[in-house]
Amino acid sequence: MSDKKAQIGVVGLAVMGKNLALNIESRGFTVGVFNRSRSKTDDMMKDHSEKKLVPSFTIEDFVSSLEKPRRILMMVKAGAPTDAVIDELIPLLDKGDVLIDGGNTNFHDTIARNKKLDASGINFIGMGVSGGELGALQGPSLMPGGQKDAYDLVAPILEQIAAKAKDGKPCVAYIGPNGAGHYVKMIHNGIEYGDEELIDESYNILRNVAGLSIDELADTFKEWNEGELDSYLVEITADILTRKDDLGDDKNLPIVDAILDRGANKGTGKWSSEDALAIGVPQSVITEAVYARYISMMKDERVAASKVLAGPSTKVDIDKNTIVEKVRQALFFGKIMSYAQGFEQLRIASEEYDWNLQFGELAQIWREGCIIRAQFLQSITDAFDKDPKLTNLLLDGYFKDIAAKYQESVRDVVALAVKAGVPVPSLSAAVTYYDSYRAEVLPANLLQAQRDYFGAHTYERRDRPGSFHYSWYEEQ
Amino acid sequence: MSDKKAQIGVVGLAVMGKNLALNIESRGFTVGVFNRSRSKTDDMMKDHSEKKLVPSFTIEDFVSSLEKPRRILMMVKAGAPTDAVIDELIPLLDKGDVLIDGGNTNFHDTIARNKKLDASGINFIGMGVSGGELGALQGPSLMPGGQKDAYDLVAPILEQIAAKAKDGKPCVAYIGPNGAGHYVKMIHNGIEYGDEELIDESYNILRNVAGLSIDELADTFKEWNEGELDSYLVEITADILTRKDDLGDDKNLPIVDAILDRGANKGTGKWSSEDALAIGVPQSVITEAVYARYISMMKDERVAASKVLAGPSTKVDIDKNTIVEKVRQALFFGKIMSYAQGFEQLRIASEEYDWNLQFGELAQIWREGCIIRAQFLQSITDAFDKDPKLTNLLLDGYFKDIAAKYQESVRDVVALAVKAGVPVPSLSAAVTYYDSYRAEVLPANLLQAQRDYFGAHTYERRDRPGSFHYSWYEEQ
Repeated sequence: MSDKKAQIGVVGLAVMGKNLALNIESRGFTVGVFNRSRSKTDDMMKDHSEKKLVPSFTIEDFVSSLEKPRRILMMVKAGAPTDAVIDELIPLLDKGDVLIDGGNTNFHDTIARNKKLDASGINFIGMGVSGGELGALQGPSLMPGGQKDAYDLVAPILEQIAAKAKDGKPCVAYIGPNGAGHYVKMIHNGIEYGDEELIDESYNILRNVAGLSIDELADTFKEWNEGELDSYLVEITADILTRKDDLGDDKNLPIVDAILDRGANKGTGKWSSEDALAIGVPQSVITEAVYARYISMMKDERVAASKVLAGPSTKVDIDKNTIVEKVRQALFFGKIMSYAQGFEQLRIASEEYDWNLQFGELAQIWREGCIIRAQFLQSITDAFDKDPKLTNLLLDGYFKDIAAKYQESVRDVVALAVKAGVPVPSLSAAVTYYDSYRAEVLPANLLQAQRDYFGAHTYERRDRPGSFHYSWYEEQ
Repeated sequence: MSDKKAQIGVVGLAVMGKNLALNIESRGFTVGVFNRSRSKTDDMMKDHSEKKLVPSFTIEDFVSSLEKPRRILMMVKAGAPTDAVIDELIPLLDKGDVLIDGGNTNFHDTIARNKKLDASGINFIGMGVSGGELGALQGPSLMPGGQKDAYDLVAPILEQIAAKAKDGKPCVAYIGPNGAGHYVKMIHNGIEYGDEELIDESYNILRNVAGLSIDELADTFKEWNEGELDSYLVEITADILTRKDDLGDDKNLPIVDAILDRGANKGTGKWSSEDALAIGVPQSVITEAVYARYISMMKDERVAASKVLAGPSTKVDIDKNTIVEKVRQALFFGKIMSYAQGFEQLRIASEEYDWNLQFGELAQIWREGCIIRAQFLQSITDAFDKDPKLTNLLLDGYFKDIAAKYQESVRDVVALAVKAGVPVPSLSAAVTYYDSYRAEVLPANLLQAQRDYFGAHTYERRDRPGSFHYSWYEEQ
């Protein structure tokens, strides 16, 4: 072991941990590295012998290798493995040390761990990390939550390793207390599910209703990426659609046609919907995206059903010249609804969990590094700069105007897809959300009458405050 | 206290507990009654002094008043109050006694309590009770889950007090181990949310797009209730629409127009969606119904948004002669999708939690007594009688044929409402579910390509088994 103490330590040297350690080291820091099984550490030291890395082979040596207050970044599997590492570390740490969980952790667990460690004076930061393997190495978007003092101790490192936006600002900021960082990462992932599903529905309509060829589709997404839809996910979609199969006999087969249509998930999108349900937020676009993955997994059932369930018999009329632009507008409209719901969820969660989230700043640190990075996020930051107390993105002038301009297109596209028998769960959730949100009166008055009728649940009135019960069972 | 021991005891004499106790007594049983605060017991004894009720004023006397093995029905508030009563009872009970929780309890809690009490030999049944106050008194639908032996000890009482279907069968059956009863009640309530939302959307379209008067609407629902939509909720909707305001100045104002459109909820619909997300079931129709209530609660936001967010500018064309029948077909189609999802959730939950649920029997005990009672449920029982291993209701001949026949109507109605700017979240979820379920290929192939591109998550192929990763970042 070198005499020089490391400025930060990384536990867990799978690809994300290794790449984050290399990223930190590349900014001039000395990094302690440790992995439960020795081989990963050996491999890393072999490949990077010239770097300022301090390897340890016991957890005790690892902790001793760090300068105080110690800064430790855990990049281990969420759940029990994370608890196991924390339990090993606790007796070795001192008051004021900072433990960071950069894993894919549920925010409820982060709240509990932060509370538990805080009792013994150890700071605990739950940090969302987005950007995949490459982002970890070159510059991710980072969402750290926990004690503010502890954040200040690690901020100089985090600001160096984070992605930089076009204006030079690092894609990291203090998110809020305890579980706020992992919560915001969870919402980021939910929004990512929504973005992907909206893109995939648009692709499906253009391919299977409008009949565009795969080359026309690739060109379309490339063109879209040059306008207001400019984003990482649209960019890679355009690239994906140009790629050919690398394994099959037909070297001209588009790779998408070689890939099985079973959409997997790692749970964070689901968590975001579960929490929307728990705290009362109508997060329908993302939830439909989660459900779309679930239905896609039922491949055998679907193949069987496709042979017996009837589709529409009439062909729909399509003007190929206008459909592409309509779908583009529908996609952007859907994206706005999805983000409006996501930021509504952040607002309500901030109250519910007492986090004081800075919404404009969240959009700002998503501008680069993460999967949902997009030009569009700047408009969200601008909206919250103009009005930090904005209730819903749709009430901002920019978004309101786009919604007004594009609503006819989304109505046409949803109607077209529904009549053609092509599923558009997230696009239709987007338009029904818009129409619900702008409805002065919803049929929930009838609902309240029903609930009062069968369960005496009472109702409110339009003309006076209070709870009322109607004598439904008495003679009229 | 009378010398004669009571055959069953009821703890908690609020309206549900009191009515169930009276129902049990009316079938010839002697019932011990106890309430934490004495006044409820006194009131009940004053009103029903002639009945075979044995009141107690301490929990010890209450337990002593019961014959062994003791049968105790708790009708107390779910959560901490239920735990408090259980903790008081445990030291007073003997092995083999049967404790029944008839409250509105989350099935996870029931699983935990059943396990805890089972360790000391006390049987614990979690029982869903549906039917409201009147149902409790005259005959509810009962969904008891727990130890089968314990069920057999209480079955003679439960079968007497439950509602009876037209064929004379009682609306109660052994549901399954531990939390199965409360789970099935939770799904019942989720389905109830879906039924109500689909009715409310149909009402909204007919009133605000087609322009039917309130009297025409009342007649329409009355007529619908005489056909395949025959159900308690359609029946009370027809009745509600005939009722006039009982409090305001205008005695001709329909009561629905006096009621504020904020749709409340008590959590069970939300739980059913949370569990659908947890176990991987695409339960979109019910979830949209939950979200519809959440949006309805944002009344102030909606009123503000209604003044600034633009709706469609073009008027939609409606043939008033055909729209009513189309909406009827759309409503029935939506109902079928909602039940298809609900029973898919029951099937997957039965595997997930190891319950061996009898799906046909569940539909059977919902035929009377409960809020979703309907003629239609017999068709579900028939479908599972024909094929107990039916994967999805949509694959049954009866439901498949109706879906095929009514799909054009639901497509027309959803397209019409979307173009008219009237929200149809559950109806559109129904049609997109149908189209997703019958899709041999969904765009999840593009999703898997995206996930592999940014996160190296790998994908499956159509032509061979295994997981694959594409070299997206290499030169082509």
